[in-house]
Amino acid sequence: MSSNTFGTLFSVTTFGESHGAALGCIVDGVPAGLPLDLDALKSELARRRPGQSGMTTPRQEADAPEILSGVLNGVATGAPIAILFRNTNQHSADYDAIANLFRPGHADYAWERKFGFRDARGGGRTSGRETVARVAAGAIAKQLLARHGVTVRACALEIAGIKAQNIDWDQVERNPVRAPDAEAAVRMADAVNAAHSDHDSVGGIILCEALGLPAGLGEPVFDKLDALTAHAILSIGGVKGIEFGAGFGAAVMRGSAHNDPILPGGKFASNNAGGVLGGISNGDVFTFRCAVKPTASINRPQKTIDRDGTPAEISTPGRHDPCLVPRMVPVVEAMTAIVLADLLLLAKNSRLA
Amino acid sequence: MSSNTFGTLFSVTTFGESHGAALGCIVDGVPAGLPLDLDALKSELARRRPGQSGMTTPRQEADAPEILSGVLNGVATGAPIAILFRNTNQHSADYDAIANLFRPGHADYAWERKFGFRDARGGGRTSGRETVARVAAGAIAKQLLARHGVTVRACALEIAGIKAQNIDWDQVERNPVRAPDAEAAVRMADAVNAAHSDHDSVGGIILCEALGLPAGLGEPVFDKLDALTAHAILSIGGVKGIEFGAGFGAAVMRGSAHNDPILPGGKFASNNAGGVLGGISNGDVFTFRCAVKPTASINRPQKTIDRDGTPAEISTPGRHDPCLVPRMVPVVEAMTAIVLADLLLLAKNSRLA
Amino acid sequence: MSSNTFGTLFSVTTFGESHGAALGCIVDGVPAGLPLDLDALKSELARRRPGQSGMTTPRQEADAPEILSGVLNGVATGAPIAILFRNTNQHSADYDAIANLFRPGHADYAWERKFGFRDARGGGRTSGRETVARVAAGAIAKQLLARHGVTVRACALEIAGIKAQNIDWDQVERNPVRAPDAEAAVRMADAVNAAHSDHDSVGGIILCEALGLPAGLGEPVFDKLDALTAHAILSIGGVKGIEFGAGFGAAVMRGSAHNDPILPGGKFASNNAGGVLGGISNGDVFTFRCAVKPTASINRPQKTIDRDGTPAEISTPGRHDPCLVPRMVPVVEAMTAIVLADLLLLAKNSRLA
Amino acid sequence: MSSNTFGTLFSVTTFGESHGAALGCIVDGVPAGLPLDLDALKSELARRRPGQSGMTTPRQEADAPEILSGVLNGVATGAPIAILFRNTNQHSADYDAIANLFRPGHADYAWERKFGFRDARGGGRTSGRETVARVAAGAIAKQLLARHGVTVRACALEIAGIKAQNIDWDQVERNPVRAPDAEAAVRMADAVNAAHSDHDSVGGIILCEALGLPAGLGEPVFDKLDALTAHAILSIGGVKGIEFGAGFGAAVMRGSAHNDPILPGGKFASNNAGGVLGGISNGDVFTFRCAVKPTASINRPQKTIDRDGTPAEISTPGRHDPCLVPRMVPVVEAMTAIVLADLLLLAKNSRLA
Repeated sequence: MSSNTFGTLFSVTTFGESHGAALGCIVDGVPAGLPLDLDALKSELARRRPGQSGMTTPRQEADAPEILSGVLNGVATGAPIAILFRNTNQHSADYDAIANLFRPGHADYAWERKFGFRDARGGGRTSGRETVARVAAGAIAKQLLARHGVTVRACALEIAGIKAQNIDWDQVERNPVRAPDAEAAVRMADAVNAAHSDHDSVGGIILCEALGLPAGLGEPVFDKLDALTAHAILSIGGVKGIEFGAGFGAAVMRGSAHNDPILPGGKFASNNAGGVLGGISNGDVFTFRCAVKPTASINRPQKTIDRDGTPAEISTPGRHDPCLVPRMVPVVEAMTAIVLADLLLLAKNSRLA
Repeated sequence: MSSNTFGTLFSVTTFGESHGAALGCIVDGVPAGLPLDLDALKSELARRRPGQSGMTTPRQEADAPEILSGVLNGVATGAPIAILFRNTNQHSADYDAIANLFRPGHADYAWERKFGFRDARGGGRTSGRETVARVAAGAIAKQLLARHGVTVRACALEIAGIKAQNIDWDQVERNPVRAPDAEAAVRMADAVNAAHSDHDSVGGIILCEALGLPAGLGEPVFDKLDALTAHAILSIGGVKGIEFGAGFGAAVMRGSAHNDPILPGGKFASNNAGGVLGGISNGDVFTFRCAVKPTASINRPQKTIDRDGTPAEISTPGRHDPCLVPRMVPVVEAMTAIVLADLLLLAKNSRLA
Repeated sequence: MSSNTFGTLFSVTTFGESHGAALGCIVDGVPAGLPLDLDALKSELARRRPGQSGMTTPRQEADAPEILSGVLNGVATGAPIAILFRNTNQHSADYDAIANLFRPGHADYAWERKFGFRDARGGGRTSGRETVARVAAGAIAKQLLARHGVTVRACALEIAGIKAQNIDWDQVERNPVRAPDAEAAVRMADAVNAAHSDHDSVGGIILCEALGLPAGLGEPVFDKLDALTAHAILSIGGVKGIEFGAGFGAAVMRGSAHNDPILPGGKFASNNAGGVLGGISNGDVFTFRCAVKPTASINRPQKTIDRDGTPAEISTPGRHDPCLVPRMVPVVEAMTAIVLADLLLLAKNSRLA
Repeated sequence: MSSNTFGTLFSVTTFGESHGAALGCIVDGVPAGLPLDLDALKSELARRRPGQSGMTTPRQEADAPEILSGVLNGVATGAPIAILFRNTNQHSADYDAIANLFRPGHADYAWERKFGFRDARGGGRTSGRETVARVAAGAIAKQLLARHGVTVRACALEIAGIKAQNIDWDQVERNPVRAPDAEAAVRMADAVNAAHSDHDSVGGIILCEALGLPAGLGEPVFDKLDALTAHAILSIGGVKGIEFGAGFGAAVMRGSAHNDPILPGGKFASNNAGGVLGGISNGDVFTFRCAVKPTASINRPQKTIDRDGTPAEISTPGRHDPCLVPRMVPVVEAMTAIVLADLLLLAKNSRLA
């Protein structure tokens, strides 16, 4: 299976570069008969769109999805659903000055070593713009999950070291950083703006949850729920770590404190497991956090080399988010939804009908 | 692709239960002509073997590998290499008393909800015993990697909250906890023993590195080096998180501090990236840490329910490691080696020959 | 892996319906640095295009390919190559009269039983129009193969029972039926026209060869060269059989006659094997034939049922080729080239570098 | 996915060489709860076993299957089922004399060109002995199919040019050639014996049918029922062609004769389609024929070269079936059953539940 495709039964293939003609995705394996809510899909895209707030790059991308196939009269036919996004607001010239330099914190150097050359018009295939295709595919996955009572949601748990003090999901879409805590959101936004003023950037932590997940999702031994989710989330550029339930905190707990007692009705007295045991969902809330690094593109001089290996200085004056977290929240939801949709379909064959 | 197989070109299929007749693996895609060093393979198995120290379960498992196919006169033929491990030291009776109870922290409940019943003779397929097959496959991967100058190594960075204060790789195999710090190793061992005396268990953190990795490994966009590694490592039972390079620490850094300056010769002034940018190795040391939860099986009463849903108490008197970390170190190395071997083969087609 | 994707390293995903907005393909795994000859690609498409001769449907399809990604300055970048074809000449109204009837010889009935409904605007996903995407992908595969000295070619060996009496490859593109025999071509064309006048259709046999194939392609045991080719060719609508080398003729031969004697230089005194032994190319010409059924859409009354199960009569007045063979020749070449390109990349890992 | 694994949800991995320690298979994706009938599995193996009649090699292979995993108390647990066959009756010495010669009609030459050397102890991985693993896996597939009312059966339609004159399935297991016609069976057996006396071999044609198949199996566009079946059947050594329904006969039919009229109740007035339209089963009997070449190993001198390229003569005195057809009948059934089981599981997700 080639590396631009993800998933076994519910599979997503993406294509396109940030400064090429278009990007898009092919979503294969959508069961025939699923009604496609195009407005809901557009709402997800709007959450990822640049320019939605002062927190994000002022680049304007229309991100108007064109459904090319697989949907008839608003309903999935069982054929692959292709969605196209034209690129319209490209400033390739922004990159001319640095076309021969490798940007620190970016894939430039590794990419050139791998492929022999690189697309210097922005990130090319490694650009965050690629995630527009993931969000579209994830929106379809979410609609399939909703038919089974499953909801996926994410938020900014921490930005620039400022932590949300409480988790109020109603707050998330009411502030530009997507924090679940209105007061912390203000301070997070201040920190993002301060970094931006310094021509610098900040990172953060995203919390993601899936509610309503039935027990029994996840395929032992290699396609565990958490293993597939880790694969999906780490495939998002800028993510440097993931932890489930108690996560790294589990490393300092004793078993007697970490084991979640099982209660009548298949409930658990705690959720250190994060809803997954032995790689299979246990019916509790599936929960994980992922670490997002500070944006690599910053408008201040940094040491690098050019393509001839000569030392040089580089700064990246383009239009970049000073913090990736707010716009990555819907991307994390999308990739999680894609994993869960796939596992939901796979689980139909766990036992004899 | 079914869920007991991992990898695209260098692929590993495992089978077997802890209390069944045997376990084993099929390693497919080993290039013909690779000499197989059986002693080296056995050495890896010895590092995973129970009973190797006071830190581990006193269970005796011979773990004698039988090579069934794919090797002729000590050399890989290009055919799939099957390796078999007979189970010999099974105490299924240990489990009779708890056959109708779900063990907290184990997959029991989720497994039964998924498959309709479970193998109550130990963990069945979810047992840590399954990793014997992974270590054997990983030993072959390591030998392939060695031909390309790549080495994988891991150690116990932290156990029960006690951190190694420095990283001296020469120390790792000289102490029973596999810590890279002789002094910390003593305190870690004490903490493990203390937990064991309390009929309890502890967790920890494993550090893993790959040295000599050429730039250019990792397949954008979904099969990134870090994404595949996360998949592989999270597929090991008991791992609750993974982070690459600066990892979760990146979340509190600014871009100016996090970006690794690029120096002449394709060197980097720091390694916050952990040797991977945009999912592709950059030629620096590939490095990650993973969180290991405290052993779920503890010999003290915990709340649970039985298969009828009635509340009950359970304690697990069997023979279990009070800390999974020391024996998981070679398993983490094995899964990492399997990923790297696969990406090494895949990378041969990155560009036109 | 989802069913609209074919191939392991060189993989092709297609999407789109005959009467939807567009069709297209994503070609993944093209090595970076391959120059893409767009004119050559368009030439392949022209060979498949309807309306190219009196032998084919008068439907006009522009079939203008738009390269959306993966190519920069005429060279493959290593990123997935997406190619788009807009649908422009759709006569959906042609199908209104028969929207509730199942067409004999078509997938209509089976499709509806599978998916619960069908796209009655032409064949939807099952339309021969889907092959435009295959030909585009195959054109890229051919260009990769050409770099390795491999050529794929096909022709109409038999139409309506009229057999080519000799194989002159120079003739193939000089007659509208793509026969390798100018004289037989005339009679074949007459037979096609006669069937068309009778509101009927005819079938035939396509011969395909790959020249210059190195020995060693094909992956034992399941992805044999012939097995993968059979998979690829039978995935083309209307193909009902395939045979390699002596094929069904081998069934009546004795071993002493069938075995190809091996000569110095790795030559063979005959080629009953069709260039493949044990699923691996042996360096001789790879050769197979496939059977093409008569076009299912004919404008004469046939027995069928409607969606309620009531008996009915149906005739299909639309614009259809009276014989699929001439336009299927480039499709057979394309699918063969895709298989060979994939196996060529896979073979780089057969033995230790 | 590596080439020793076949199938997506119901997948089979085989390993082992004819003259190594053992062969076997891993069957993954068997739904938990399926009762495994071990006697039925052994019956299938007995049908493939050498020495079962004067028609076959006198080699004695016990073919005693050992179930290593995945079955508890006679029921599939959902874990991979591993089955092991020890090799016991190896005459490697038979091959010493020809270890440096390439056998015509065998994979020897192509194999050596691919892998750099070969296992000269019999066919190694290319030996027909590998099919013991397929038959075991197929027996499990058959048992899964039986739960859904699907039966697979095959027979010798033609041997050495002698055709069965009628199809009486009750006759098949009553004669040593597995012909569906008692009278033709006698003549077929005579022809096999005559060839054997001449130190020669003969080929034939196998007919295979699946009964009770529901409409709707097969995944458009690349994993069509017939495409996957062709892949599976051509992966059996010695098969040179396959045709579905009218097959190559369709090439000389007109559409009006070939199209199967559709009758009330979703019946068809004829079955030229062979039960598959557009790659999807239509509810009629699924039927195909495959061509089997004469056994390559014959005990008479043939031209070849040695590993240095020097001309030589070779004859193969070992113990070989003079006709592969009788013992290949259960292998064809097995591979067909594996495909159908996989498609049956895949079809559960065709439409919204």
